[in-house]
Amino acid sequence: MAGKYPTSPLAPAAFPELPVIGGLRFASAAAGVKYQGRTDVMLALLDPGSTMAGVFTRSKTRSAPVLDCQAKIGLDGTGGAAIIVNSGNSNAFTGKNGIESTRAVTTATAAMLGLEETRVFSSSTGVIGEPLKHERITAKLEELKANLAPGKIAEAANAIMTTDTFPKGAAAEVALPGGSVKIAGIAKGSGMIAPDMATMLVYIFTDAKIERAVLQGMLSSLTDVTFNCITVDSDTSTSDTLLMGATGASGVTVTADDTAFVDALKTVMLDLSHQVVKDGEGATKFVEITVTGAVSDAEAKVHAMAIANSPLIKTAVAGEDPNWGRVVMAIGKSGAEADRDLLTITFDDVLVAEKGWVSPSYSEDQGAAVMKQQEIRIGVDLGLGAGKSTVWTCDLTHGYISINADYRS
Amino acid sequence: MAGKYPTSPLAPAAFPELPVIGGLRFASAAAGVKYQGRTDVMLALLDPGSTMAGVFTRSKTRSAPVLDCQAKIGLDGTGGAAIIVNSGNSNAFTGKNGIESTRAVTTATAAMLGLEETRVFSSSTGVIGEPLKHERITAKLEELKANLAPGKIAEAANAIMTTDTFPKGAAAEVALPGGSVKIAGIAKGSGMIAPDMATMLVYIFTDAKIERAVLQGMLSSLTDVTFNCITVDSDTSTSDTLLMGATGASGVTVTADDTAFVDALKTVMLDLSHQVVKDGEGATKFVEITVTGAVSDAEAKVHAMAIANSPLIKTAVAGEDPNWGRVVMAIGKSGAEADRDLLTITFDDVLVAEKGWVSPSYSEDQGAAVMKQQEIRIGVDLGLGAGKSTVWTCDLTHGYISINADYRS
Repeated sequence: MAGKYPTSPLAPAAFPELPVIGGLRFASAAAGVKYQGRTDVMLALLDPGSTMAGVFTRSKTRSAPVLDCQAKIGLDGTGGAAIIVNSGNSNAFTGKNGIESTRAVTTATAAMLGLEETRVFSSSTGVIGEPLKHERITAKLEELKANLAPGKIAEAANAIMTTDTFPKGAAAEVALPGGSVKIAGIAKGSGMIAPDMATMLVYIFTDAKIERAVLQGMLSSLTDVTFNCITVDSDTSTSDTLLMGATGASGVTVTADDTAFVDALKTVMLDLSHQVVKDGEGATKFVEITVTGAVSDAEAKVHAMAIANSPLIKTAVAGEDPNWGRVVMAIGKSGAEADRDLLTITFDDVLVAEKGWVSPSYSEDQGAAVMKQQEIRIGVDLGLGAGKSTVWTCDLTHGYISINADYRS
Repeated sequence: MAGKYPTSPLAPAAFPELPVIGGLRFASAAAGVKYQGRTDVMLALLDPGSTMAGVFTRSKTRSAPVLDCQAKIGLDGTGGAAIIVNSGNSNAFTGKNGIESTRAVTTATAAMLGLEETRVFSSSTGVIGEPLKHERITAKLEELKANLAPGKIAEAANAIMTTDTFPKGAAAEVALPGGSVKIAGIAKGSGMIAPDMATMLVYIFTDAKIERAVLQGMLSSLTDVTFNCITVDSDTSTSDTLLMGATGASGVTVTADDTAFVDALKTVMLDLSHQVVKDGEGATKFVEITVTGAVSDAEAKVHAMAIANSPLIKTAVAGEDPNWGRVVMAIGKSGAEADRDLLTITFDDVLVAEKGWVSPSYSEDQGAAVMKQQEIRIGVDLGLGAGKSTVWTCDLTHGYISINADYRS
């Protein structure tokens, strides 16, 4: 539905220039799976020797493509690998047909590219519960293969969009003792976002040489502080997928000790996850919520997500109302430990309340000024321990209602 | 803010005729706590011999009046009792001032009416975090005392409203072996509703003679299947309070074995809790969600609330879109046990999906016809056990956004 809704006011000025990753090629096509007049299939081909890692939705009704990826992701393959993605239909809750559709796509892709079927990963995003017309995808495989080229990552980012209003990309370059390595990633995601993981699709590539288990470890732990800390509407999708491929084309080996690489990867993942929030359906405000002083990190996150998912807080942000009373409410309802008389609340650097009472220095003008910003920080200190968590969300507006009361997705 | 927003399309045709309860008198006044030009204080006086029971929010940032009620509710008092309620200010997150304000109100009320202070229960509803101008309430006590009369329950229902668009009342009469007893209740509640309990205030009265501990037991267990099974927006208030008083004026003793009485009380509580949902901010649809076949009742409720609180499902309902795929999503994200291939989904009596796949008999027209109704039933069977739960909610509309992005409450 790209183009149906205005571009988010929080979108970056332009799609970034992403470096070409050696050992990696892309192609896109218009298969007409559901959308007409736009590309809706993306193919990525990684050279032999690439290692693959992934993180997936924990939904108990996860889709067929997710189950298929999960079955394959832990295998140590050495041949080439591919990722094939379609938008318009998520192939979720499609029963046996769904599994067969996924298998048909991956098998045909493997055959067309000369790969082991276990090295072909697929994702589908869009409507739940409608059969995937997979023959429309396989019909495009010849064209996709013919069009594979190193530089086409921007087109790929466009092909995977559903309700996104802008394509999402991020990159980093890292100087390591052994040489320079590049990281480039694309993502899609707008509504139904509350990663646990959440339809959010993310594909990150690097030319570093990284053992599969090391790559998986990095990806899983960084996901916990990036993609698992965002929410648009608390609705966790059946289909969230994050796949990362390391082609090794740079010749530079990266281990878990290469903190410069891990930091760079975290930067890319933060950038992409924030862009997903900024494209939250109907979003006009980007909100960072930091909870400190909790009994534990886990409890801090429970509080942070209670704030981030509260419709009353999200509508107050939309209305630029510094309604900190609703923050008190959310802390109180979260279920995690809190002592009202130890609470401190801040909006950006403005102290709003402390010791369970509005601060004498606080005036509503200060709070209102913060709320007028496009980016807002809400801080809560619980005064109980050292647990902390930072999460990101957007506001809840008329735009969200319009999109979701009308769009069958 | 009564009158500011149009009456909910789900409102009953009129405020019901409520029976006069012996041993009980009401008065209302316009104290100008925050609102101008409407009543905002309610006083209920129960004769000596009345027993009192209550259920309160579990919020960790619960308000001063709630803490005060909780301290008193378990005491076996024999003198008269009173309930004094103000709207416009919830006296929540008001620190030491808040506790003093509550104490000032209850002390002055006790003195004016010749009661023990421990027999005076107070509630406050409205804005969080602003000091309560309690002197405006105590200034009205003389007038309230002078105006106490048996029949004025409808005025009381009006005085406690905040964003409600209609006053809420319900009643029942029960024929028991010892004679006839009456039950009459009033409630307020619109936004910030997800009882655990949730600003929802409920006051129920009966002329039955019931021991305090028996009354408390009935109230607590019935709350679990009524007020604790409704949600408007998942935001649990700092202030939810349900108080019940039994005056004994009928001379008929009721025990826990009087199932006819318990059933009648449940009917009153269901009626009031459903009215609160029907006045959900911006509501246009009333939705009953029944989950069966779960691993346990608790897990069934987790699933049911995941559906009831899902913004994507609530907007689909608003848009009259039979989007059962989102129901699959909510089941998957809830955290409770589910097997996608054992799921059955129904809209009213229409079978939508079974065995993890859309039913061959289902057509979208059938689902759309159900969604056009004002009252909708969503059924999910998990096929795993005998756990069940029924909850009620409303849709999520532009009205909710308009009310909450503008109203400081």
